[in-house]
Amino acid sequence: MSEQTEEQRPSPSRRALIGWGGAGLALGAAAAGGVAAAVGTSDRTEPAAESGGAVPFHGRHQAGIATAVQDRLHFAAFDVLTDDRAELVALLKEWTKAAAAMTAGRPVGEGAVGGLAEAPPDDTGEALGLKPSRLTLTVGFGPGLFEDAKGRDRFGLRKHRPKALVDLPKFPGDNLDAARSGGDLCVQACADDPQVAVHAIRNLARIGMGNVAIRWSQLGFGKTSSTTPDAQTPRNMMGFKDGTANIAGTDTAGLDKHVWVSEKDGPDWLVGGSYLVARRIRMHIETWDRASLKEQEDVFGRDKAEGAPQGKQREHDQPNLKAMLPTAHVRLAHPDSNGGIKILRRGYSFTDGTDGLGRLDAGLFFIAYQRDVRDGFVPLQQRLAAHDALNEYIQHVGSALFAIPPGVRDADDWWGRALLS
Amino acid sequence: MSEQTEEQRPSPSRRALIGWGGAGLALGAAAAGGVAAAVGTSDRTEPAAESGGAVPFHGRHQAGIATAVQDRLHFAAFDVLTDDRAELVALLKEWTKAAAAMTAGRPVGEGAVGGLAEAPPDDTGEALGLKPSRLTLTVGFGPGLFEDAKGRDRFGLRKHRPKALVDLPKFPGDNLDAARSGGDLCVQACADDPQVAVHAIRNLARIGMGNVAIRWSQLGFGKTSSTTPDAQTPRNMMGFKDGTANIAGTDTAGLDKHVWVSEKDGPDWLVGGSYLVARRIRMHIETWDRASLKEQEDVFGRDKAEGAPQGKQREHDQPNLKAMLPTAHVRLAHPDSNGGIKILRRGYSFTDGTDGLGRLDAGLFFIAYQRDVRDGFVPLQQRLAAHDALNEYIQHVGSALFAIPPGVRDADDWWGRALLS
Ligand code: HEM
Ligand code: HEM
Repeated sequence: MSEQTEEQRPSPSRRALIGWGGAGLALGAAAAGGVAAAVGTSDRTEPAAESGGAVPFHGRHQAGIATAVQDRLHFAAFDVLTDDRAELVALLKEWTKAAAAMTAGRPVGEGAVGGLAEAPPDDTGEALGLKPSRLTLTVGFGPGLFEDAKGRDRFGLRKHRPKALVDLPKFPGDNLDAARSGGDLCVQACADDPQVAVHAIRNLARIGMGNVAIRWSQLGFGKTSSTTPDAQTPRNMMGFKDGTANIAGTDTAGLDKHVWVSEKDGPDWLVGGSYLVARRIRMHIETWDRASLKEQEDVFGRDKAEGAPQGKQREHDQPNLKAMLPTAHVRLAHPDSNGGIKILRRGYSFTDGTDGLGRLDAGLFFIAYQRDVRDGFVPLQQRLAAHDALNEYIQHVGSALFAIPPGVRDADDWWGRALLS
Repeated sequence: MSEQTEEQRPSPSRRALIGWGGAGLALGAAAAGGVAAAVGTSDRTEPAAESGGAVPFHGRHQAGIATAVQDRLHFAAFDVLTDDRAELVALLKEWTKAAAAMTAGRPVGEGAVGGLAEAPPDDTGEALGLKPSRLTLTVGFGPGLFEDAKGRDRFGLRKHRPKALVDLPKFPGDNLDAARSGGDLCVQACADDPQVAVHAIRNLARIGMGNVAIRWSQLGFGKTSSTTPDAQTPRNMMGFKDGTANIAGTDTAGLDKHVWVSEKDGPDWLVGGSYLVARRIRMHIETWDRASLKEQEDVFGRDKAEGAPQGKQREHDQPNLKAMLPTAHVRLAHPDSNGGIKILRRGYSFTDGTDGLGRLDAGLFFIAYQRDVRDGFVPLQQRLAAHDALNEYIQHVGSALFAIPPGVRDADDWWGRALLS
């Protein structure tokens, strides 16, 4: 059975893929055979119809960007510990194989109970019995892979560093925590079941043990962005619909124009890829909660109930920017006033306990994809950081930028092949 | 419309309950009228048939204990800042009203866009449009309410302190963080949608602003316990089914015997209530992941794939404790070997980012309900802390104990009335 046909299976339950139990049960072979019939589904950019289903892993672009936004996120940034290029390559190959399995709803390697009872299981097991849950795993390469903090070119990659993989400037108001910023590699795990996303990151971290270490990670419990025009727009922790004006995952022209790196852009190894900006944005929710409804609506330039642009009736009505305050978030961020900048937003709400002052540590884990940050996040955030009325209620506390290589084409391909071989 | 009939509505969408938009829309009255027809559902202890539905708030016992376990948790412990008994009473009354609304899928007060545009909205709004999602809110009273750390009896409650509301002993291996332990009040919010649980805690914290402050809070992303005998048993972060042998929410005799405080137990104000122990248990998952399958199965005394007791075939087979190692977790925790102790477990898995050493901060947020901790958690944990093979892979890092008052009977009743009036 080739890896390609395996991925096209409809929602196998991970339960069916258990090898054998320690008590000597032999469930494996028969159950696995029972789901071998393949059905064809191919277009990654179509929103998956069925929640619980599998999103194809192979394709021209990585899944998890144009894919209809899943409910939950586990995002991890890794430091690469090894200086050995061969070890880095071996890791990326192993990660690719594990990702192909997990996104298809299969366990890593021999599974949680496969292999030898005297050996540690290949898979940690907490996703056994769970559906694929539309898991996507999206990998990114940070600046440190091309040149580390000490200026060393550990992997001979300096010459391949994309010009657009800049060191992000410091923006007014930034209060970045180094322990929640940067990273040599990242993996964005999105799934409709958080246990599936957490399981995936944990197993990749485990595979990399000794060669990589998690630098920081972020759980997102609620999606804020919609990349499916027909879905109900989710609300962020400020109570506003978030993701109304976004690039749709089905808008091929928009994606080509604003998200995917083209041959003209280069470098060659990145064609079909993108750039991911992650910003951990803390909300001062207690201050926000004391603001009047009118003030809240003026901050965004949209009404709270419906999400309509000020002066209009419905959420998807064309905004009249002049009806908003000059400092309104939407007015400043809208392409008609910002010189045509468009990004694909894919953020998640977070709540990470309390900050020691009796306040919830909550906010938006902002994720944006774009073809070139120098025409995307950077000028847009410069504008927002300078003028946005929202700044009174938020603070950027973490930041990272990654180049997102193109998709893994087939079972012989691996994450980063075009860069590293 | 009385509060009782409102609560018995079938899954209203919170969207229908928006008052009016800042742009001047008048959606409210008509939409609210449209869902006014009441249907009768009464038995709290029946598992809610429909995910997304509302769990009745009023009853003899608080919901969230015998209720079929929901998917997600937000647990908060509060310090009471005020010394004024009248303010504490007013707070508990307001909390009760807000909880009745939110668990029924309605916003707090006038809603996120109701009331005056010049005033802050009563509800923070991020749950607008979401289903009730089986939200339950369960309140508890910590030792500090009866006598604070300085020995003061701020609210004249010392004489009402239940004997079973002990100061938990220090157990061998404990490594408790004071910032994640204790609290004068707690609220356990469980729901199938995390945004609904987070919204509820946030709005209660907001109502209490100035009188209470969140001391610590914990998000749980995956339930570990099953209180419904027919449901698939969830897996914890060690990959094992967790909750196989538990008190079922439908087992009225078991609940009466092991969970609910009886008239004989007293004190009077607590009859129909319970005691909640919360323990934040960190797992050394990297160490666990290096243990062989055999070692892992020996630690619990059950097999990993099926969850069967060692030497047996199926998960729900009667365990043969002698087939397990003397240090096996299940052998030690089983009532046949521990003198008949039974507790209702209702824990959740957590992952809170990274610990600064490249390791995931992950584990089990253990929650147990029992009729008396002196015959429940305390002796059981003494036994486990001394002998459990699992101790090599875990560490208890947070701890709290709360007395759980009985249910709120009707619209005139409020949390703690029998104690405070
Ligand atoms: C906590 C921080 C933020 C919050 C709460 C927030 C919230 C919102 C909301 C409610 C909208 C209107 C609904 C929609 O069209 O999605 C919006 C629009 C938008 N936001 Fe943000 N946002 C935040 C940060 C940012 C940042 C950092 C950027 C980029 C630098 C950004 C870029 C945009 C863009 C491009 C739009 C669409 C504007 C349009 O075309 O109408 N936002 N945001
Ligand atoms: C991270 C810590 C823990 C883990 C991973 C864990 C895991 C498990 C597992 C896998 C089982 C077997 C399946 C089942 O019957 O649910 C189990 C059973 C049980 N555990 Fe734990 N547990 C932990 C801590 C505790 C603690 C602190 C207590 C109480 C002090 C406890 C009490 C019990 C009881 C009463 C049973 C049922 C035993 C029986 O009647 O067969 N566990 N636990």
